[in-house]
Amino acid sequence: MKKVGIAILGLGTVGGGTYQILTSKKQYFAKYHNLDVSVESVLEINEARLKQLGVDPAIVTKNIAEVVSNPNVDIVVELIGGIEAAKSFIITALKHGKTVVTANKELIAKYWHEIEETAKANHTGFYFEASCVGGVPIIRTLTESMQANEIISIKGIINGTTNYILTKMADEGRDFEEVLKAAQKKGYAEADPTADVEGFDAAYKLSILSSLAFNVKVPLDKVYREGISKVTKEDIFLGKELGYTLKLLAIGKKTPAGSEVRVHPTFIKNEHPLASVKGSFNAVYLVGDNVGEIMLYGKGAGALPTGSAVVSDIIFAAGKADHFYVPFINSKDGEKGVRFNDDFSCEYYLRMSVIDKPGVLAKIAGAMGSNNVSLREVIQRGTAQQDGSVTLILLTHITNEKSIKAAIREIEKLTDAVVSIDAMIRVE
Amino acid sequence: MKKVGIAILGLGTVGGGTYQILTSKKQYFAKYHNLDVSVESVLEINEARLKQLGVDPAIVTKNIAEVVSNPNVDIVVELIGGIEAAKSFIITALKHGKTVVTANKELIAKYWHEIEETAKANHTGFYFEASCVGGVPIIRTLTESMQANEIISIKGIINGTTNYILTKMADEGRDFEEVLKAAQKKGYAEADPTADVEGFDAAYKLSILSSLAFNVKVPLDKVYREGISKVTKEDIFLGKELGYTLKLLAIGKKTPAGSEVRVHPTFIKNEHPLASVKGSFNAVYLVGDNVGEIMLYGKGAGALPTGSAVVSDIIFAAGKADHFYVPFINSKDGEKGVRFNDDFSCEYYLRMSVIDKPGVLAKIAGAMGSNNVSLREVIQRGTAQQDGSVTLILLTHITNEKSIKAAIREIEKLTDAVVSIDAMIRVE
Repeated sequence: MKKVGIAILGLGTVGGGTYQILTSKKQYFAKYHNLDVSVESVLEINEARLKQLGVDPAIVTKNIAEVVSNPNVDIVVELIGGIEAAKSFIITALKHGKTVVTANKELIAKYWHEIEETAKANHTGFYFEASCVGGVPIIRTLTESMQANEIISIKGIINGTTNYILTKMADEGRDFEEVLKAAQKKGYAEADPTADVEGFDAAYKLSILSSLAFNVKVPLDKVYREGISKVTKEDIFLGKELGYTLKLLAIGKKTPAGSEVRVHPTFIKNEHPLASVKGSFNAVYLVGDNVGEIMLYGKGAGALPTGSAVVSDIIFAAGKADHFYVPFINSKDGEKGVRFNDDFSCEYYLRMSVIDKPGVLAKIAGAMGSNNVSLREVIQRGTAQQDGSVTLILLTHITNEKSIKAAIREIEKLTDAVVSIDAMIRVE
Repeated sequence: MKKVGIAILGLGTVGGGTYQILTSKKQYFAKYHNLDVSVESVLEINEARLKQLGVDPAIVTKNIAEVVSNPNVDIVVELIGGIEAAKSFIITALKHGKTVVTANKELIAKYWHEIEETAKANHTGFYFEASCVGGVPIIRTLTESMQANEIISIKGIINGTTNYILTKMADEGRDFEEVLKAAQKKGYAEADPTADVEGFDAAYKLSILSSLAFNVKVPLDKVYREGISKVTKEDIFLGKELGYTLKLLAIGKKTPAGSEVRVHPTFIKNEHPLASVKGSFNAVYLVGDNVGEIMLYGKGAGALPTGSAVVSDIIFAAGKADHFYVPFINSKDGEKGVRFNDDFSCEYYLRMSVIDKPGVLAKIAGAMGSNNVSLREVIQRGTAQQDGSVTLILLTHITNEKSIKAAIREIEKLTDAVVSIDAMIRVE
């Protein structure tokens, strides 16, 4: 039976889940995968956590040099997170000929090239299924099942915290701040929720997934990013009446104008398979030129779901005849001549507060028309407020981001007609 | 660049799709997979089809001996379907050291052991992603992404024809026979629809998928099978009112009493992710002990989606360092001591026509109780018919198949109370 020695760096949530799976399933891996998988080294300074998980003190170290010089360690699993020390630990492990498995999306999104080059130069493997969408096997699907396809588009609900918040807002009619606070109390949102609610986490994952989908490295700074902190329950409910569900979508598209990558609150049709993805569940919806539409759905976070992805990478890597595999085909060269499209196009939903008097709609429609934005629906909501204003909802036909923004700037100047533009939400 | 020579046996729907993908994506495979993939041999007797696809006559043959003796052929793709000649062609190819890729679910469900032994004895590979659920990468997910999991249950909508028919019946309030005829006219159902509507096709796939999920060969004759030909629009609508959607589900479960494998019309909650899988779309919903719930969704049939799965197997096999891979871990030995549970348990929906007079419900409830079946809901529908009967809907708590069947036999004998038992549908 092939021996596979594992080092785990970091016993946080995912590290702990990974440790538990590896130790509890030892017999299972032997029986069904013919692999003798053993945890040979654990790098962790939190004594309480080590005790809690029952880690043998003999395999605990605080020193990366000790990990990488251990000849019994074949695969180093980095689950510390963040950039440093994770990055130097990974580079060190690769340079010592160890295969690396990680769940570190931020690191891959920012330093993929450097890690890739180090892995290639040292003939080692680098795996990161767990970096995107937890237990959902989206990376293996892209690399091992979609080979016959050019991926045309990818749309994902790839952040559980924001989907939980949006679901609660929709189901219970509560405000963003209120739901966020409740989510923080329950541990569903971080004390500093910025990475999740402002879309950074989703942007990291989209950078990785669209790089794999489109066969070209998509730099993080090409990802347009807008979070959910300004989403109101009003828009969620108005959208629902119009047939839409509001989701924080990560969208990647191949268009004649270049690759398009963006994370923002998005209205999707209630019938779309992504619309029924609720709570902390995640899903990725792909369109390939041959396979058509497919969707993968599951838990995007959590100790055991993400640990399941980490361990699947370990078994996948260990099962290789040559114990070496680099599942990426990106390279710096791949970016040359690649165009990115920041003037993407879609339909738009606008909510504004306007003066309730004749001629106002004509002015707004005029500003739209002069910027080549064509309207497909205009709805006035409710009766005039004390200040004489009413709510106006506009839905456009497909138009360009730059055009709609120019139209909005023009409408904002119509101070005798428009009180405020309160929301602009993209419709896919 | 590594050369990979392909032989295609059979240019039907999937064979044609596969041929189109392989030829149109030749540059793509070279660029992104570093593989020089070429179709070296095609076995097909239909001259019109060969012409339609523009196959070079120099590579066409009618003789399997010519295919397997061709040293340029590395991978033989069997897309003839059915048992013979497909089976002998596959065995012959394996014996000549060729890796085999197939979409032939019936053949695998019935002769997996023999094919597996031949592949192992000849150190060749045998791949069959396309045999189950077309473009949905469910087999690769089970073998390459779920290694850290014991699969607890698998539930699938894995036959597009029946899902199309049930969706139409539900959305348009039409009868089974009427929808089937329309589907046949449009080519969505075969002239002889038995394999689809009676659940044989789903049973083949469930046998394969549950074998992989549960790490033990599940023989086809252990799969309980019941089709949709007796499903009525009445039950679809009554179920909907009660919060259920009717689907032909393929269900595999690991229970303390043994493995449970069954295909039958099933009520699932409207909120279940499988309930929104409509028309000809397919989906497989898995629960793993670590990953929790995941679902894969997509097109389960069609030339290009299924061709996409065939080609993904080709690229996966060709990318192996040793060009050899057997993705199954089943064996005849695996079956020893494996128990199968034919007395499965679930909730039940019963619709019956009963005499509208006092004491009737007591008799029915008594027959249920004496067979240990506990009722959770009893609903009388509508007013008495001319014959004095009314419709009665019963929903049970979880009970055993044998108990409910014994209760039904007893109720059928209550001729002074019960006119007919019109439907029994399992609820998951």
